[in-house]
Amino acid sequence: MITLTTDFGIRDSYVAQMKGAILGINPDASIVDVSHHVPPQDILAASFVIDSALDAFPQGTIHLVVVDPGVGSSRPVIATKINNQYWVSPDNGLLTRPALRYELSETVHVTNPEFWRTTISSTFHGRDIMAPVAAHLSLGVPLSQLGDPLENSPVILEHQSPLCRNNEIQGEVIDIDHFGNLVTNIPASLLESVSLNNCKIRLENQVIATGISDYYDEKKKGEPLVLTGSSGLLELAVNQGNAQEKYQARTGQKIIVQLESE
Amino acid sequence: MITLTTDFGIRDSYVAQMKGAILGINPDASIVDVSHHVPPQDILAASFVIDSALDAFPQGTIHLVVVDPGVGSSRPVIATKINNQYWVSPDNGLLTRPALRYELSETVHVTNPEFWRTTISSTFHGRDIMAPVAAHLSLGVPLSQLGDPLENSPVILEHQSPLCRNNEIQGEVIDIDHFGNLVTNIPASLLESVSLNNCKIRLENQVIATGISDYYDEKKKGEPLVLTGSSGLLELAVNQGNAQEKYQARTGQKIIVQLESE
Amino acid sequence: MITLTTDFGIRDSYVAQMKGAILGINPDASIVDVSHHVPPQDILAASFVIDSALDAFPQGTIHLVVVDPGVGSSRPVIATKINNQYWVSPDNGLLTRPALRYELSETVHVTNPEFWRTTISSTFHGRDIMAPVAAHLSLGVPLSQLGDPLENSPVILEHQSPLCRNNEIQGEVIDIDHFGNLVTNIPASLLESVSLNNCKIRLENQVIATGISDYYDEKKKGEPLVLTGSSGLLELAVNQGNAQEKYQARTGQKIIVQLESE
Repeated sequence: MITLTTDFGIRDSYVAQMKGAILGINPDASIVDVSHHVPPQDILAASFVIDSALDAFPQGTIHLVVVDPGVGSSRPVIATKINNQYWVSPDNGLLTRPALRYELSETVHVTNPEFWRTTISSTFHGRDIMAPVAAHLSLGVPLSQLGDPLENSPVILEHQSPLCRNNEIQGEVIDIDHFGNLVTNIPASLLESVSLNNCKIRLENQVIATGISDYYDEKKKGEPLVLTGSSGLLELAVNQGNAQEKYQARTGQKIIVQLESE
Repeated sequence: MITLTTDFGIRDSYVAQMKGAILGINPDASIVDVSHHVPPQDILAASFVIDSALDAFPQGTIHLVVVDPGVGSSRPVIATKINNQYWVSPDNGLLTRPALRYELSETVHVTNPEFWRTTISSTFHGRDIMAPVAAHLSLGVPLSQLGDPLENSPVILEHQSPLCRNNEIQGEVIDIDHFGNLVTNIPASLLESVSLNNCKIRLENQVIATGISDYYDEKKKGEPLVLTGSSGLLELAVNQGNAQEKYQARTGQKIIVQLESE
Repeated sequence: MITLTTDFGIRDSYVAQMKGAILGINPDASIVDVSHHVPPQDILAASFVIDSALDAFPQGTIHLVVVDPGVGSSRPVIATKINNQYWVSPDNGLLTRPALRYELSETVHVTNPEFWRTTISSTFHGRDIMAPVAAHLSLGVPLSQLGDPLENSPVILEHQSPLCRNNEIQGEVIDIDHFGNLVTNIPASLLESVSLNNCKIRLENQVIATGISDYYDEKKKGEPLVLTGSSGLLELAVNQGNAQEKYQARTGQKIIVQLESE
């Protein structure tokens, strides 16, 4: 099984070209689209979306992640193992979020053209290098044949981790989903040992909710709430509504969980 | 074969997570997306879109329909047989349109956690309960093992059926498709025994067409027409144009077929 | 393997209905979406998008292309061989771009209802005729059984080929992709024998670049460049930016490559 995460959109034939390249090598590959709507060249957004999907896939799944503003330049292509799954991408920071949660092993610098398309364009290594490599991995080719071990660690981008201090956890909105839910970088597991009934959650200076809800419908239609989203991160939502619209929210805004009521 | 109909959009990884859950259980499942662009929480729209697709799929197909504003609350998950196919969804009215056309049988309240994900989130039963259940159905698990027979009938939402009175059929626009065609709730079969050459079709107070056309190109480019759409429902269209734009139409507007000319 | 290219969008169930029709006949068919976002009824745009994908697919792939404003009228459905692959579409000009590059062979007028759906709607031959025909092709039915040889040549639409005169190549923007890159109708192969370092490339009257770049990142972020796109056509781009927005460009605008500096 091979998943695809790109910033290609679905209007052009780019995604199909990658699938053609895969199926030409392994006609039995099962291909799942994770998202092709990553904002163009937004590496951190791509890193978040594939990270949110990892745990839903079985061992051995191959994740092909192509957001590649440096295509054609000297940035390496890498392949690695993470979470008992395989990963193929340019080495430009796409691993940032998964690497917060899981160890990498057997990371290689993909240099062996034996597993690539015969002709390599300078603008579409997704089709010409990474898709063929993923297809060969799905046929059982070991990572070690794709190239030499990567000399340095893969690129990890600067990112905001939640800060815990005094009685506050300071995080931020890292994604706004299709429903307008504000996904934060605060893992619910951070709050496991504390009493949540009286905690106050603020978006910038505005108090959104007191306490963490268990599910959306716990509040009345149109009311805001904070709960643990399906990826284990705190999420600000409006029951049957759209939190982004209600609060004119955007990614990067601060989320503060105040652990004791004042 | 398993179809997916949701209001998840395709920007986030939610759809992929459901597919991962299915393929982790049945790697040979063939998954078809019906639509992920149901307006958020719009149960009747989802009911229409999956209903329009049912007849194109072979016997034994499993339809997984997840528009689930009540996720985490006490609304049941159900599985049933309809049109010699299987159906898995929350019990919140999604069956409204298919149940107008087909009988249900063997409807069960899905309660047996043996066929679910080990950990159940409170916000994503599509991934944690319904996708695994659909995958197990595709492996041959019988409905009866998923839970007990549903005690009450599944939820059917109030909806507008076309009214026939005097020499008029009164219906409404229930969907506007990608081409701007106005799909009505009037089955063409209702008109089978009547002469259609002189019937007048109105959108609210405006006469759109006289007579029912056989195909779009029967009229000149830009001219309005009424024909039987591919789901067997009357449809208002503009040849090589967009009826929604031309008439500023919206769902819920009245469509009147006046059977005798005045 | 069967690819799909349509103007159906992905909001409605039309694409799923075609897939259901295929999988009902050949459950093992592997279906790849090329694009469903061709502008409604835009035959030349569809012709471009499928043409850009052809070379990425293996021999024997079946391309099903359904942009069909004449559905229900007398326009024929055709099936043919091109580039060692199969092609099924209405005969309305969709072959225009592929036929510039590849020979057709064994072109048939699809008339044998043995390989169609039992009931044929007048508005959706994609589902009722073309999808079943593609599915039967994937099972090994030969083209000759689908109908008689097509009497005339398939419809080829008028289109702009690049003009070479004096020291200029005059082409045009034929597609603008998801990244805002301006794809031209000028094959890079036209420029193979000339010196490119000093050539000037203009969009209408505006000089965009001097010389052809090898890859995007050769220029600074935000700077314009011209390179060979992944389909072998010249492309105007902005490194990590959007050329369409920068130049308010649209398809049909002139692109001039001036081979000698003045």
